[in-house]
Amino acid sequence: MDHDVADLPSGPLDLYRKKASFSWKDMLLFLEGEDILAFKRRVLKTLEDDPLFARQPGEDVPLEKMRERTFLRVKQLFRYNFLTKAEAMENPWKTVALSDCLGMYDWAMSAKYFLNKGMFGATIANTGSARHSKYVKSTEDMTTYGCFALTELSHGSNTRAMRTTATYDPATQEFVINSPDFEAAKFWVGNLGKTATHAMVFAQLYTPDRVLHGLHSFIVPVRDPTTLLALPGVLVGDMGKKLGQNGLDNGFALFHNVRVPRENLLNKTGDVTPDGRYVTPIKDPNKRFGESLGALSGGRVSITRMALVNLKLALIAAIRFSATRRQFGPKDMEEIPVLEYQLQQWRLIPYLAAAYALEHFSKSIFMNFVEFQLGQMMRDKSERQAEMGREIHAIGCSSKPLGSWTAQRGIQECREACGGHGYLAMNRLGDLRNDNDPNCTYEGDNNVLLQQTSNYLLSWLHAKRSDGVRIQSPLHTVDFLEDSHKILESKFTARTMEECMDSAVPLAAYKWLVCFLLEESRMRLEQQRASGKDDFEARNNSQVYYCRSLAIAYIEHNCLQRFHDRTTDEDTPAGLRPVLSKLCALYGLWSLSSHMATLYQGGYLSGRKPSELVQMSILTLCSQLKDDAVALVDVFAPSDFILHSPIGNADGQLYKNLWATVMQGSQVLERPSWWKEFISDKPVVGSLRPKL
Amino acid sequence: MDHDVADLPSGPLDLYRKKASFSWKDMLLFLEGEDILAFKRRVLKTLEDDPLFARQPGEDVPLEKMRERTFLRVKQLFRYNFLTKAEAMENPWKTVALSDCLGMYDWAMSAKYFLNKGMFGATIANTGSARHSKYVKSTEDMTTYGCFALTELSHGSNTRAMRTTATYDPATQEFVINSPDFEAAKFWVGNLGKTATHAMVFAQLYTPDRVLHGLHSFIVPVRDPTTLLALPGVLVGDMGKKLGQNGLDNGFALFHNVRVPRENLLNKTGDVTPDGRYVTPIKDPNKRFGESLGALSGGRVSITRMALVNLKLALIAAIRFSATRRQFGPKDMEEIPVLEYQLQQWRLIPYLAAAYALEHFSKSIFMNFVEFQLGQMMRDKSERQAEMGREIHAIGCSSKPLGSWTAQRGIQECREACGGHGYLAMNRLGDLRNDNDPNCTYEGDNNVLLQQTSNYLLSWLHAKRSDGVRIQSPLHTVDFLEDSHKILESKFTARTMEECMDSAVPLAAYKWLVCFLLEESRMRLEQQRASGKDDFEARNNSQVYYCRSLAIAYIEHNCLQRFHDRTTDEDTPAGLRPVLSKLCALYGLWSLSSHMATLYQGGYLSGRKPSELVQMSILTLCSQLKDDAVALVDVFAPSDFILHSPIGNADGQLYKNLWATVMQGSQVLERPSWWKEFISDKPVVGSLRPKL
Repeated sequence: MDHDVADLPSGPLDLYRKKASFSWKDMLLFLEGEDILAFKRRVLKTLEDDPLFARQPGEDVPLEKMRERTFLRVKQLFRYNFLTKAEAMENPWKTVALSDCLGMYDWAMSAKYFLNKGMFGATIANTGSARHSKYVKSTEDMTTYGCFALTELSHGSNTRAMRTTATYDPATQEFVINSPDFEAAKFWVGNLGKTATHAMVFAQLYTPDRVLHGLHSFIVPVRDPTTLLALPGVLVGDMGKKLGQNGLDNGFALFHNVRVPRENLLNKTGDVTPDGRYVTPIKDPNKRFGESLGALSGGRVSITRMALVNLKLALIAAIRFSATRRQFGPKDMEEIPVLEYQLQQWRLIPYLAAAYALEHFSKSIFMNFVEFQLGQMMRDKSERQAEMGREIHAIGCSSKPLGSWTAQRGIQECREACGGHGYLAMNRLGDLRNDNDPNCTYEGDNNVLLQQTSNYLLSWLHAKRSDGVRIQSPLHTVDFLEDSHKILESKFTARTMEECMDSAVPLAAYKWLVCFLLEESRMRLEQQRASGKDDFEARNNSQVYYCRSLAIAYIEHNCLQRFHDRTTDEDTPAGLRPVLSKLCALYGLWSLSSHMATLYQGGYLSGRKPSELVQMSILTLCSQLKDDAVALVDVFAPSDFILHSPIGNADGQLYKNLWATVMQGSQVLERPSWWKEFISDKPVVGSLRPKL
Repeated sequence: MDHDVADLPSGPLDLYRKKASFSWKDMLLFLEGEDILAFKRRVLKTLEDDPLFARQPGEDVPLEKMRERTFLRVKQLFRYNFLTKAEAMENPWKTVALSDCLGMYDWAMSAKYFLNKGMFGATIANTGSARHSKYVKSTEDMTTYGCFALTELSHGSNTRAMRTTATYDPATQEFVINSPDFEAAKFWVGNLGKTATHAMVFAQLYTPDRVLHGLHSFIVPVRDPTTLLALPGVLVGDMGKKLGQNGLDNGFALFHNVRVPRENLLNKTGDVTPDGRYVTPIKDPNKRFGESLGALSGGRVSITRMALVNLKLALIAAIRFSATRRQFGPKDMEEIPVLEYQLQQWRLIPYLAAAYALEHFSKSIFMNFVEFQLGQMMRDKSERQAEMGREIHAIGCSSKPLGSWTAQRGIQECREACGGHGYLAMNRLGDLRNDNDPNCTYEGDNNVLLQQTSNYLLSWLHAKRSDGVRIQSPLHTVDFLEDSHKILESKFTARTMEECMDSAVPLAAYKWLVCFLLEESRMRLEQQRASGKDDFEARNNSQVYYCRSLAIAYIEHNCLQRFHDRTTDEDTPAGLRPVLSKLCALYGLWSLSSHMATLYQGGYLSGRKPSELVQMSILTLCSQLKDDAVALVDVFAPSDFILHSPIGNADGQLYKNLWATVMQGSQVLERPSWWKEFISDKPVVGSLRPKL
């Protein structure tokens, strides 16, 4: 192929780059396409060239300064306006590409930008009406700075239990927003700590007749946009330091009878008339349920991708490190790269395979979401559209756990695989871990979300058993369950390693696994109900080993299925298919290996041979892929400036880069400012002991 | 029992405390004993009462300030001198008790204190001779501040490959210490960054005849103790920010022909005469090998305990949080503590069981190490002493991975189980994770160390098969391997949940597992060698799924065995035995459940029943233990000041404590210092876009 991707600098990594079985530039183009590639390059180059985005690896930045820098950079992003609305509509993937770029640089900055534009601005556009367009407009040019205030100090997952109230007062035609006590303070709200001028506040709506109409959202001004001082009745502040993403100012707010005009209610699903009557355009609440579930999925689908970006960055650092770090060897004076060790390969290369699987997966589920969203925009009221909403919800609720946990574990493995150098802040593995961590928690705790997915699967089984419904979904992720009986009779059939190193093998096993766990979960639930448990308890007692495992197996299967289809697709360039097939087989087998006990338990496997085959296939694939590993991360790698991890620089000059960065540290060779403390006032050993 | 342990404050946690099946005070006394309990309380109370140790949860402290504060606190520790040498000799466990206390407060402070006293001072005493006692003395009163400089920028695990040289010059009777290049810079040395005046430098010793005598250690002055300025020829500095433990100043040093007197060689194992001849008192290097291995184990045994302390602190926070955080419930308006959910129990309570198992384990292996050390002091030259050295080495090389990984995973689970609030820095789960992380790396990467343990086990098998040696070790951790044949014929026999919920069940399974993996590892190695691989490669290719799993199973078995013996011991108070037995069974089954595939693979398990029994037993034990969980962490819990995690305060006032801490944050309600940046210079959207 002919394209102008720059060559990587020559150096110690050439050893592996020369051995690669494929062209990394071809792979890059295959994954991204010319257009997105050029777009990403432009965004990243712009950040690199702008001194406002300059930084030093491992520098110690005070919290206040971090918040300030992030704010200034976000302001600059408004000036760059990398992606107009029209461009995003034309190619929705560009929004993700932009998020990839900003996140690779710094997730806190990305969050600060998108929370205002997306979570505040776009949600107003989607859930409000014409009377709110001024807020959308003023958000776009930063006159208004917005935030999304849902969770409270004492409630997160249980959104229905939020306690902030909005009581309508017909006398002044205002809503009175009130926090009954500090436990109902809005909490964890991104942007609210220091910069938000307006909040989208979720509150229980009461009409003057004291009737409660449930949770609604209101635009509430919280700070004077000309002074950034809190408005009367609003106690607003910064929650302080977090484990990561400290450029983002998460905050809290307590409302003491704050009055906002009636029009500030976002009124798409319900409104209050000037005289105080509640009106709603919703006729069939059940029908809308699927759609509204689907609408919530955008965040979770995006988080799947965000987690993947973190995993990729960590792998670039760890694999380039492993290819250049030499330790021990067959002969005394000749050390070999640690990537040559089976153990190091086994620690890292399966995560590399997972990154490739998730690369395709995160893109294809995003495209599913786009399809769903288009239906919404076209006001598609079909059963299929509602069904797609339910399915995309089931996908998002399990893809987020899959992505965020894979990244969490993978980054930790990368950190440890880089030994002490992985523990130096300048190499960014700590920041990646810390910045990835909230992906496991926000938009729903992973474990809690998985219940949504298993409920979805169980509802299909129920529909089939009680109403004879054929299992077939718009995105086809559950269609195979229709053949459950036949699948449950199948067994592991690979007899040789050659047979086993094919992604069809783990794929078949996953089909069996999902069917098995679905059946087991159903039986467990029935057993619980039969023993007199109510639905709440029966479901709670069927999560561990059943519903939770079911949801995980379902999404791993789906991820593998999509990757398998992609690698066997005739449109996939022949030069890339061999390496992609290996990655796909490795991902499938490695991922499957955490379910081996269940496969034995249910009789899909028996005897020692299958387990051995799977293990030996994993090791063989790792060893076959180790010469491709550097090229495979080269595909993912942004410039050194963006990667921001000296052990992962493209030139592979591990020690030179590490040493240079250490020597550029602040005050590195200076004695400490408090050196006199060392010299003077020497301790008299035990002098304070008598007082003990 | 009658003892004066103060009651805990009444509050929301009473609900669970009242339901506990045992007295937490009895448990505390049983685990610690009166003497240690009083000692720990005194140390902790002293820190709490001294304003120098005051701190604010979640505060943002600059690196330089963190280093300074830690230094001043360490200086104060010299004044308190909590533990004299004589006291430590009388009860060696007190050293661990002190480390527990200092570490619970802050591991960086603990490290800064013990690296000087132990790693520098005590190692000089152990490896030097009378001529070095002045250094030991000056270390004790902080005139000298020492550090231990072994690893280099390009070498860590491969200690023999260190490249710093020490060449003897008979003309001046000095050693010339030299770093050939920056890759040989000493790196990662704790205390060297800012405060060390002297370093124990490991270097390759050359005599004037250019003969190399291997790695030796030398006392090298690096900074002028009266100015803290670097000495001529020494380029010494601070490595900068790390993922955690930032109170400790890790540093680097490059030596340019630095001259030190001949006497600065630590000469226990080898010396150079004034005229330049190398002399050594070692006659039988093989015999000394076991002893020197054993001597290295102190650090690893201690790290096992340090990791446990981190796990305990995280569990205190997470369990108290889970007992007071309410979310959802069977009825709409009545929420239940999240600890009531099976899923939350399953996430946390097995780690609580692991903490109790490791509590006993870390103590008993420390006592083994003390026994070994006493033999060394008594100059015990017996075969048994050398053998004990090898065994304690095998234990330390696997107990550190067991402890540090269990803590790593457990802390992460605690972080996630506390949801968003677990992500707030003030709740310390991030610091615990970050401070625990190096335990996986220093004193040997966990994965690399495990090879030492499997080598030890394989050498026993080899001795038995080739020389008919009876397998029996001083600490009896391998004795059961003698019955390997019989054990390998055994099967899982539990038929009911009652039978399965007995720690004897997982214990028997573990014995089979170790025997099986040992045999498999041996066969794998032989297979590799038979296929023409040299020893280096054969061993490397036998780690994953074989030797590595073997070492892990061995140490988990040993940990379980010791806990099992303890719980079934008649000396264990009857009132505590039921809860300890449950913890032991849970730990065993839960830990075993990660090996189920191997148990099926090797035929120890068959059919679906065993797996179901193990799973249901785990869930049942979790549910039986949930009412004890709060009392079980009360046993571990230091005062709120030391715990330093508002969500884990003893009064259980979750939200009050969290809210109060947020409100005490610096500048919490202030507008940002850079507020004018928000107001002025508003971005013109897209104004920089044409330049893209």
